[in-house]
Amino acid sequence: MVGRVAPGQRRATGTPAPSAEPVTARIAVDLLGGDHAPAVVVDGALRAFQDDPSLHLLLVGPYDAADAILAAVDPAQRDRVGMLPMPAVELHPDDVARAALRSVADGLADAVVSAGNTAALVVAAARSVGRWPGVRRPPLAAVLPTVAGRLVLLDVGSAVDPDQDTLVMHARLGAAYAAVVNAVANPRVGLLTIGTERGKGDRLRRALPLRLAEADLPAGARYAGLIEGNDVVSGAPADVVVTDGFTGNVLLKGLETAYATLGPPGGDPASVPPRVAMLLGVAGTIVVCHGAASGGDLADGIAFAARMHRRAAVAAMADLIPHNEVTHE
Amino acid sequence: MVGRVAPGQRRATGTPAPSAEPVTARIAVDLLGGDHAPAVVVDGALRAFQDDPSLHLLLVGPYDAADAILAAVDPAQRDRVGMLPMPAVELHPDDVARAALRSVADGLADAVVSAGNTAALVVAAARSVGRWPGVRRPPLAAVLPTVAGRLVLLDVGSAVDPDQDTLVMHARLGAAYAAVVNAVANPRVGLLTIGTERGKGDRLRRALPLRLAEADLPAGARYAGLIEGNDVVSGAPADVVVTDGFTGNVLLKGLETAYATLGPPGGDPASVPPRVAMLLGVAGTIVVCHGAASGGDLADGIAFAARMHRRAAVAAMADLIPHNEVTHE
Repeated sequence: MVGRVAPGQRRATGTPAPSAEPVTARIAVDLLGGDHAPAVVVDGALRAFQDDPSLHLLLVGPYDAADAILAAVDPAQRDRVGMLPMPAVELHPDDVARAALRSVADGLADAVVSAGNTAALVVAAARSVGRWPGVRRPPLAAVLPTVAGRLVLLDVGSAVDPDQDTLVMHARLGAAYAAVVNAVANPRVGLLTIGTERGKGDRLRRALPLRLAEADLPAGARYAGLIEGNDVVSGAPADVVVTDGFTGNVLLKGLETAYATLGPPGGDPASVPPRVAMLLGVAGTIVVCHGAASGGDLADGIAFAARMHRRAAVAAMADLIPHNEVTHE
Repeated sequence: MVGRVAPGQRRATGTPAPSAEPVTARIAVDLLGGDHAPAVVVDGALRAFQDDPSLHLLLVGPYDAADAILAAVDPAQRDRVGMLPMPAVELHPDDVARAALRSVADGLADAVVSAGNTAALVVAAARSVGRWPGVRRPPLAAVLPTVAGRLVLLDVGSAVDPDQDTLVMHARLGAAYAAVVNAVANPRVGLLTIGTERGKGDRLRRALPLRLAEADLPAGARYAGLIEGNDVVSGAPADVVVTDGFTGNVLLKGLETAYATLGPPGGDPASVPPRVAMLLGVAGTIVVCHGAASGGDLADGIAFAARMHRRAAVAAMADLIPHNEVTHE
């Protein structure tokens, strides 16, 4: 069944994409990821597939969910849908996520999209595609709309008990992501805390400003100082906001829900980025949706993953943060 | 100058207020608290004073700021404004906050309002009016509008590195506050985290659900389980949300700013509670405004403090959480 996946742009991770768009993008989809899987994943995969004639799907998970997609696909388009065989008995969602990640490591797909368990995904990603050197815990980066434009918030759920070194590396990765994905020149990197007086914040954050001010940030980025929750809405003082994965996840889910209810802070619904996060500091394109993601969110995630592949975003970030070899666990 | 403050309802903390409203409320105002003090404090104090003929002000801080208020007051109302003498030389804002808190402990005022440094306020409050037994770190509780109604979020900035015992006590205090201030019967208490699967969350939170399920919660409250950032916007699963002071502060400032920009989640601007927090687990009425509070916020804070005094909110909470003696540090 793997043979159904077109070879597409099977090139090594790290090689820039050709400039002509849209090139084929082969997206591995975790059919069992998320609270409402597989129904919303089937729905999302079909929507993304129909919106993008150059999108190929590699369905990873149980046959019945894959069959629901295959049955809805125009027979003339069947060559754009493949499936990774999985044992049907006692299939754990984390096993499916791991298989989807391996398909990227094995060159069977260009990117993976999953709404599955974040902790399991992050560990499996490090093992399969590998971490960049110096990246202890790959962060999940989300993009939020603000009054002033788009803002990168990281981490939003991977490193829930980070140390200072981890947050400094996240600052570097976030700066590269803002430069590549939001096209921000010389990104301003802020540290999220609860007051800008000296000595404010918790144990983790008190000594971080000095570390961040001295950090080797890529893409001409600079440390822009301490910022607070309100600054993540205004977007005025920073393009990248660094925080631990617990605080970032809570704030992201709060603000995303507020904006979904009330409209985005910039006023233009078209300005709202997809409700997805990208795993940074790994040698592959890995896009994570919320556990509670809808079919529309999954479709957005798949389209986003295809866009990241076509723009060779991972290779572009790797160029900004030089490293010699990838660490496999 | 102290004599200018009318004796008002000088009764022991813990005694319920008489039912007739409005009774006199004597509010000590920290003139040097906040980023924009004393200008916004002067503005806010005058607004609150003019809105409430039964409000008495005890101005604590430098004479020039107090004089700006005294000059604007109708001479016929001068007996409603008093001032605590402070040395004018090398006056540190934290000293002013401490003096304002002492005025409550000494029975010169019924409540205090400050936009000063949170950490200094919490420590000074514990020393002056005293903590309730078992309260290691008094939490700051804020009330947020939600789609479903009002929600108590705590802690929002006092206990930034709490232990589990502290969060269990905060759950009890938050339940009492929701019952007394939001008139919620049998409040549902949720623990803020980043996913509802077992084992999600950081080190601090992983073992807390069991502790909260077994906790002796007041006012018929019950533990309602794990909730996420989105639930703080919908308000559907909980009336009280417990979290550490770092996460709570970031989320509060993010959501308050989103609602100030986009309108409240319930749609009715009149439903928005004042942007203030109340210090719980202490034997006095202590209201804290944001460091960046406006004159309007300060006026709201003073009016809120007067309301809490008139409703004898602290005594009502103490009745719900029985204790024998107050701990002074």
